Amino acid sequence: MASNFIRTGKKIVAIGRNYVAHAKELGNKPPKEPFFFLKPTSSFLPSAGKVEIPRGIVAHHEVELGIVIGKTARDIPASQANAFIAGYTLAVDMTARNLQDKVRKAGLPWSAAKGFDTFTPVGGWIPKENITDPHNLRLSLAINGFTKQDGSTGDMIFKIPQLIEHVSSIMTLEEGDLLLTGAPSGVGPVVSGDHVTCALRDASGKELMKLEFDA
Amino acid sequence: MASNFIRTGKKIVAIGRNYVAHAKELGNKPPKEPFFFLKPTSSFLPSAGKVEIPRGIVAHHEVELGIVIGKTARDIPASQANAFIAGYTLAVDMTARNLQDKVRKAGLPWSAAKGFDTFTPVGGWIPKENITDPHNLRLSLAINGFTKQDGSTGDMIFKIPQLIEHVSSIMTLEEGDLLLTGAPSGVGPVVSGDHVTCALRDASGKELMKLEFDA
Ligand SMILES: [Mg+2]
Ligand SMILES: [Mg+2]
Ligand SMILES: [Mg+2]
Repeated sequence: MASNFIRTGKKIVAIGRNYVAHAKELGNKPPKEPFFFLKPTSSFLPSAGKVEIPRGIVAHHEVELGIVIGKTARDIPASQANAFIAGYTLAVDMTARNLQDKVRKAGLPWSAAKGFDTFTPVGGWIPKENITDPHNLRLSLAINGFTKQDGSTGDMIFKIPQLIEHVSSIMTLEEGDLLLTGAPSGVGPVVSGDHVTCALRDASGKELMKLEFDA
Repeated sequence: MASNFIRTGKKIVAIGRNYVAHAKELGNKPPKEPFFFLKPTSSFLPSAGKVEIPRGIVAHHEVELGIVIGKTARDIPASQANAFIAGYTLAVDMTARNLQDKVRKAGLPWSAAKGFDTFTPVGGWIPKENITDPHNLRLSLAINGFTKQDGSTGDMIFKIPQLIEHVSSIMTLEEGDLLLTGAPSGVGPVVSGDHVTCALRDASGKELMKLEFDA
C-alpha cells in the first residue's frame, strides 16, 4: 500500500535544483532539464527521530514536498501523471554538503553524500484528495525556532507532472516510491543539539503536515 | 528471503573502479578508497531478457560479481562481513557511457546513466556454501561469441569484506540488497541485435552461473 511507503517503498527519487533561488544560492545555474539522484529507503527517519551526523560531515537541511506513487508504471505522459499519484508527504533531503562538494568536483556519484542512515526525515501520509493544488503549498523549516526555509511549491521550475514524465521515461516508478521535488532556498547546516521543525501549509495557512527531528 | 532478491530487494549498491585495469581503460586513477552509486531495483532484467537501449544512448556492459545480503545490519566490521552474505549472483552493470561522461564533467549524479529499466541483467541465486572463495572466480562476458571481458575476482582492489564495511558505515544493508563489486577491464558497447553471454566459473573452470541477454 502506498500509504505505507516508509516501510514498503523501494526507491526515493530526488530532484535537484528545482527552485531558482536554491540553485543560485549554491552557485549553480537553474537546470535546462530536470535531473535526479537516488536515496536509499534505509535513509528514512520517521518524524520525532534523531538525525545522525557522522564525524567530519557538514549536514544541510533541504525541506521538500514528497509525492508518493500509487501505481507502477513507466513512460507516464505529463498529461496523465496525476493518476499515478497516491498521496503526499513532507520530507527533508539531508545532504552531506562538504562531501557533495568534493564528489561534484571529482565527477563522482552523489549516493553517499545523500544516502546516510537518517538522512531522509519524513512525515506521514497525506491522501491525494486532501491537497487540491500541490503547486500552491507553503514549505517551511525552522531550526530552534528560527525560520530558515520558507517557500512556495508554485516556484518549482519543473512541475510535478513533468517530473513524473521525466523520471518514468528512465526508470519504472513503483507503488510506494517517493519522489522528492526539490528544495526552496535557505538551506544550511544542522548541528548536533539542534531541534528542527518543518511544516507544509495550504494557501490559507492551514497546516497539512508537521515534521520534526533532533540532531 | 535473500534468495528472492530480484523481487524483494530494496537496493543495488554498485562499487566503481574496483579493478585497476578497468579504472585505467576509462582514463581514471584507481581509487584510494571505495566509492559506490545506487541503481534502482526497477533496473533488474532476469536472464534471457532483452536490454532496451534508449535512443541516443551508448550502452556499455560491465560484468560483475554480485553479493546478496542475508541479514539487515549497519557498521559491519570487515572481520564479520562474511556472516552477512547470503549468496552470490552474476550481473551486468549496464551503463549509459555517453551520458555518464556528460554528467561526470558537470558534477551531476550518475543515477540516470546507471538506472534505466533493464540496465541490470542478473542471473539467479548461488547459495553462499556453493562458493568457497569469492576472490578466486573467473568473470567473463562475450558478445556474439567474442570474448570482451575475462577477469579474476582476485584482482579486486577492495575485497568484499572491505566493501561491506565501507557501504554499511554509510547506509544500513538490508536482507536482499545486492552489492555489485565492480567490473574487470574490457567494457564496451552493446548494440541492438547483439547477443550477450556471461559466465561465472570457479578456479577449476566449473561454471557456477550463466547469464545471457539480447539487445
Ligand atoms: Mg524509456
Ligand atoms: Mg534536495
Ligand atoms: Mg560497474
